[in-house]
Amino acid sequence: MALLLLSTAERGEVWPRVFAEAGEPIVVGETSVMDPAAIDHIACWVPPHDLSAYTGLRTVISVGAGVDHLPPLPADVALSRTIAPGIEAMVRDWVVMATLMAHRDMPTYLAQAREHLWKAGRVMDARARTVGILGMGRIGRLAAASLGNLGFRVRGWSLSGRPVDGIDVFSAAELDAFLGGVDILVCLLPLTKATHGILGKAVFAKLPRGARLVHAGRGAHLDMAALLNALDAGWLASAILDVTDPEPLPKGHPLWNDPRVIVTPHVAAQTDAREGALHALAVIRAVREGLPIPGLVARERGY
Amino acid sequence: MALLLLSTAERGEVWPRVFAEAGEPIVVGETSVMDPAAIDHIACWVPPHDLSAYTGLRTVISVGAGVDHLPPLPADVALSRTIAPGIEAMVRDWVVMATLMAHRDMPTYLAQAREHLWKAGRVMDARARTVGILGMGRIGRLAAASLGNLGFRVRGWSLSGRPVDGIDVFSAAELDAFLGGVDILVCLLPLTKATHGILGKAVFAKLPRGARLVHAGRGAHLDMAALLNALDAGWLASAILDVTDPEPLPKGHPLWNDPRVIVTPHVAAQTDAREGALHALAVIRAVREGLPIPGLVARERGY
Repeated sequence: MALLLLSTAERGEVWPRVFAEAGEPIVVGETSVMDPAAIDHIACWVPPHDLSAYTGLRTVISVGAGVDHLPPLPADVALSRTIAPGIEAMVRDWVVMATLMAHRDMPTYLAQAREHLWKAGRVMDARARTVGILGMGRIGRLAAASLGNLGFRVRGWSLSGRPVDGIDVFSAAELDAFLGGVDILVCLLPLTKATHGILGKAVFAKLPRGARLVHAGRGAHLDMAALLNALDAGWLASAILDVTDPEPLPKGHPLWNDPRVIVTPHVAAQTDAREGALHALAVIRAVREGLPIPGLVARERGY
Repeated sequence: MALLLLSTAERGEVWPRVFAEAGEPIVVGETSVMDPAAIDHIACWVPPHDLSAYTGLRTVISVGAGVDHLPPLPADVALSRTIAPGIEAMVRDWVVMATLMAHRDMPTYLAQAREHLWKAGRVMDARARTVGILGMGRIGRLAAASLGNLGFRVRGWSLSGRPVDGIDVFSAAELDAFLGGVDILVCLLPLTKATHGILGKAVFAKLPRGARLVHAGRGAHLDMAALLNALDAGWLASAILDVTDPEPLPKGHPLWNDPRVIVTPHVAAQTDAREGALHALAVIRAVREGLPIPGLVARERGY
């Protein structure tokens, strides 16, 4: 039995070396598959359309942290999303950067610089601002800790409602109360039916006037028209986005020139090829030994 | 005896309330001084040109963290610079933001956004980059701790050479060795004769090719022509500056439009009026009780 890797050229270089060191068989590319029945794991961004030949398939391993792009899988095939400490720290770093940029009025200073205008606004103390994090998973908890260390008041909104040390965690039903005290809203949610379009008119309206948005979830969380309306109304002061809808943001889109908005091209994180391979090895071993599968996606939750 | 405050209208509002609560006398503005001999402390940005009438003067308290702008004072008058936890955290926050922006290629992404170009570059792990901090005073140590928590390798260059827990500190004589391994150079030095123009050709040449500059010291630390040369030669990749020379940066200056440079208008920190008043009260009490003066400037060092 072997793992089939369907991914980038870089992964195609790195994974076989890591698998060879571990003594695990790997096949790179569907054209190299001699016997589909001997494939028990497929690591990919999107799996083959027709999985019927892979009669021994046990898991599909998404090489990304998200799985919202994946089609439904057969009921007896487990789905694992890549858990890599490097990804989590990268997203945390982007969120800390973007939150500080929102806090310290970088959209305003960048717009002034385009006008050659040197004009200092009032500097706020981080302790005077509350950051609210939508999604208190592994990355949300990392971001909460770093932002708390910088002095921000931090609160989280968690679908699971699981408590986090030192953080005021609001449950799914407490969304309005959560939003009411948030100066900078950070989205780190997984994309599911329940969270699709959540960054829209209703949520923005519950934030205090002048709130700022930091978005490192998925483009489809965000209602871009509602965002522009909230900015135009002066309700939201600014937005820092790593994901957009549509994505990539097309040439000519008004958001590119909007002085209240900063867009980065989905670069909060990239999986390190070696870390991804190590995750796949951990999945293979867990399946073999009947242990809990790392990164196992709960189908009914969708993440 | 009383303190004379020569400062902004905001401080003129706040300080008398804080002093009243503490039962300490204060005079706001030179025109309100009835008896110059009864003034033992002057809090100001720049003191009066002629101090000869203030025969009882014990200290001049700079309302800022720096004192490089002050003229020489009589030998029997002590100089204190304002130490306020709020200022230090604010500068730390700006430095963390700017270092992350340099690390995560924000100058490139902002330049691409102006061209409506969605193009992801390679994301680097913070653990793969070394941040070198020039100046390991109170703010340098705070910044080192926060950047270390984000995974950066951090080293410091300290004029005093005083060790710092968990940080590799280089002495004044070890500047070349310090610079040789620095991917992101952060300047937090005080401005003195010894540090004037330090960010120039010789220092840039000792950095590895592709290094980035983050500057929150003083404009006069920076040789702006040398910076532009280093950027044009591709030796430095980018610079994030909160201070410039001249300052304010004039309209039409090439740095405003430079896609490799981000300028903020000297907003790394602003003293909170109440914190400044509390520092002045601490100075008054220390002088009265013969204790060490908070923020005392060592004249021979110049900071």
